[in-house]
Amino acid sequence: MDEKIIEELKNIVGEEDVSTDPLEIYVHSRDSAPFQGFADVIVRPESTEEVSQILKLANDYKIPVYPRGSGTSICGGPIPVLGGIVLAMYKMNRIIEFDRENLMVTVEPGVICDDLNEFLAPYGYFFPPDPGSSNAATIGGMVGHNAGGMLALKYGTTKDWIQWLEVVLPGGKVIRTGSNTLKSVSDYDLTKLFCASEGTLGVVTKIGMRVAPKPKYYRTVLFYFDDLRKAGNAIVNVRSSGVVPAALEIIDRISMKTAGEYTGMDLPEAEAMLIVQTDGLVEEQVQREIEICFEAAKKAEPIEWMMAETEEERNKAWAARKAAYPALVRTSPATTCMEDMSVPVPKIPDALVKLQKIPERVNNLVSIGIFGHAGDGNLHPTFQYDEREPEQREAFFKALDIMYREIALPMGGTVTGEHGIGLIRAKYLIDEYGAEVVELMKGIKKVFDPNNIMNPDKGKPWGVIEV
Amino acid sequence: MDEKIIEELKNIVGEEDVSTDPLEIYVHSRDSAPFQGFADVIVRPESTEEVSQILKLANDYKIPVYPRGSGTSICGGPIPVLGGIVLAMYKMNRIIEFDRENLMVTVEPGVICDDLNEFLAPYGYFFPPDPGSSNAATIGGMVGHNAGGMLALKYGTTKDWIQWLEVVLPGGKVIRTGSNTLKSVSDYDLTKLFCASEGTLGVVTKIGMRVAPKPKYYRTVLFYFDDLRKAGNAIVNVRSSGVVPAALEIIDRISMKTAGEYTGMDLPEAEAMLIVQTDGLVEEQVQREIEICFEAAKKAEPIEWMMAETEEERNKAWAARKAAYPALVRTSPATTCMEDMSVPVPKIPDALVKLQKIPERVNNLVSIGIFGHAGDGNLHPTFQYDEREPEQREAFFKALDIMYREIALPMGGTVTGEHGIGLIRAKYLIDEYGAEVVELMKGIKKVFDPNNIMNPDKGKPWGVIEV
Repeated sequence: MDEKIIEELKNIVGEEDVSTDPLEIYVHSRDSAPFQGFADVIVRPESTEEVSQILKLANDYKIPVYPRGSGTSICGGPIPVLGGIVLAMYKMNRIIEFDRENLMVTVEPGVICDDLNEFLAPYGYFFPPDPGSSNAATIGGMVGHNAGGMLALKYGTTKDWIQWLEVVLPGGKVIRTGSNTLKSVSDYDLTKLFCASEGTLGVVTKIGMRVAPKPKYYRTVLFYFDDLRKAGNAIVNVRSSGVVPAALEIIDRISMKTAGEYTGMDLPEAEAMLIVQTDGLVEEQVQREIEICFEAAKKAEPIEWMMAETEEERNKAWAARKAAYPALVRTSPATTCMEDMSVPVPKIPDALVKLQKIPERVNNLVSIGIFGHAGDGNLHPTFQYDEREPEQREAFFKALDIMYREIALPMGGTVTGEHGIGLIRAKYLIDEYGAEVVELMKGIKKVFDPNNIMNPDKGKPWGVIEV
Repeated sequence: MDEKIIEELKNIVGEEDVSTDPLEIYVHSRDSAPFQGFADVIVRPESTEEVSQILKLANDYKIPVYPRGSGTSICGGPIPVLGGIVLAMYKMNRIIEFDRENLMVTVEPGVICDDLNEFLAPYGYFFPPDPGSSNAATIGGMVGHNAGGMLALKYGTTKDWIQWLEVVLPGGKVIRTGSNTLKSVSDYDLTKLFCASEGTLGVVTKIGMRVAPKPKYYRTVLFYFDDLRKAGNAIVNVRSSGVVPAALEIIDRISMKTAGEYTGMDLPEAEAMLIVQTDGLVEEQVQREIEICFEAAKKAEPIEWMMAETEEERNKAWAARKAAYPALVRTSPATTCMEDMSVPVPKIPDALVKLQKIPERVNNLVSIGIFGHAGDGNLHPTFQYDEREPEQREAFFKALDIMYREIALPMGGTVTGEHGIGLIRAKYLIDEYGAEVVELMKGIKKVFDPNNIMNPDKGKPWGVIEV
């Protein structure tokens, strides 16, 4: 990159917030997907005005810009595949305003999800979307990918809580979408359009979002099954019980075993474990709801169950689920890829059984652990292999083709429930929607970013990338 | 319109579903806003294939197309201002599939909201959005305007329940947006983009939507206030009580009086009435929540209150609220215009007081009754006047300018919470968002409808129309 541009960037944000240090470049140029890019420069703006000046400069010189929060994404979304500027947003991390009467909070995109909830807790409120990486994930990144999490079944995903956005467009103009009111139908829904746009349309610089009253009571029950399909059936039963539980998670045998060893927990021998949780402001309701869920799940013949009576027991129940991914990372030969397919809930039993058979389809060159938000149809099949071995890498990508093209999509599912398209799922976009929808997305992209500087060459909206 | 085109339309949908009868043209060319258009022809398709052929024809000949459900809109949205084709969707009214395990229902756009809920009731489910016109409003129209209603505070608006859409684009291509899964982030959110697009982007021909477990218990309490501002304060108190009630409605003195006379109900003398309702599956929860709301509202010093103990009493409480609009229509000299501003909830007390003073600002040439979904910030100030009297008509439009430009927008509100831009609020679009956002909307419109045949010359997305 031209030294002159580096100088101009330094003039905008100050010398200390522009970096071309190779180590910084390296760590800012990857996420948890098996890809590596190399940015030319890392820039850390601290205000909307700085972002605006950077995007004007980048647009004038047609330099690619890759917005980035904490880099917790796992689809290759923020990777600077064409070099250029990584726009690290983590210094814009102020909680600007909490309007207790309007139940809305205004934040900058670099605020960490858990930090926001720590701030809200004393007031009795919370921001419900809770990605597994909530201790690191930024709200900006959550907007960019429309993050879900354990509570999405009852509380929805990030976009369900976002009311308005301040966005800097390529060229530097600043717009505001949506409204500070709970309802508005005066614009095309540009707010939701930016949610899950993966940084391809503009840079979000302020976020206005609703918060919810924090539940006072929880009930959690664990079920163990000796058969994966039975566990799947239990999920379908709970979902059609008339109760919407706060969480309904599954962990398969391999994930359980790995997580058990990782946490030192003594988990029973079983093919799958389910966690069902209800929550609310009134104890009788939370209790009654868990009873209904319990009866529904029991019909699927679990071999064992455990009602978490205390907060300690509840935390223990969740510890196994939360350890599933890090435990699989630790036991992997080298590479761990968490995938993100979703299917309609009634297809979950079939999907689980088919997913477990994928490794034998690729000569067992990969292994698979399955866990996820089965209650909303979203599974995170997690592959272990060594990406340095070409045969294994090839087997992994073949496994993805099987999973998305032969399992998820024919079941009426989607290739990504909450992680995003990024690089890794780009080639399935046309499979899912057809070329016409991809053309429309390209058209929308062009309206916002005519010079294609915002996170260019990513799957969304192009859908043409072979990785 | 060329007779040849009428013939081609008859070839597509059959002779009986093409009408140029003047009376049919007249009634299909208006809604409840004070405007009248004149279509050249009314066409009633019965399938996606027919819609596709019509849009191909219209696109080839650049004929304007105005999709229309039951015409219950009140913003002038479906009015054929440039003549052309009114595409009456009410014959596409099949409930195609109810997947009880996936909790999703697939419908055609002409299904009436109440009919859908009648269908769902025996299964214990319902579709929560409930516009006042639910006995006539079509689901397609609800999608087109993103309809809200009495329950939006707790249950959200139409778009919160729509999972996927089948849409015919100008030119006739058929696309499907979104996913049958609860979560998906694989596309730009085209589904939400079509919601509230007011028929300007394409014609929705199938709708996949979630349903919710129908509450088993309700608690309803009425409050009467001798001061409008106190009633407004009660709303703010309830909203920040930690409970999200199912409904939180206000009716001002004029609306109460008119509705009381209309229904024969004996309502107390008061400046305002509030209705608060909680609902749920567990009686203790519903009871506890209403108690919390009750204590919160009481702090604002109501002069009287009444807890509806039976279903009959509850229905009676709602009868007054539901009669507000028809009663104001009946007592108007000629014209009744229900408006749709929203403000952040904490601004409701100020907004109420300022709204009531609008008539004296325009020499009392209009009168105003105020009611609406105050709990989510959305008020329906309803103007009575005679549109045949130029002076009164002028006063009405001046009243709108005052309401939107001097009250709603300076309070951080929006010019339409749930009714749409249509014709009547077109000129406030740039006031609310600025020219840049309107340019983006124009750009998006062009991507979907390059020849501008879909509901052309409406406020959204152009924002330039003086009515």
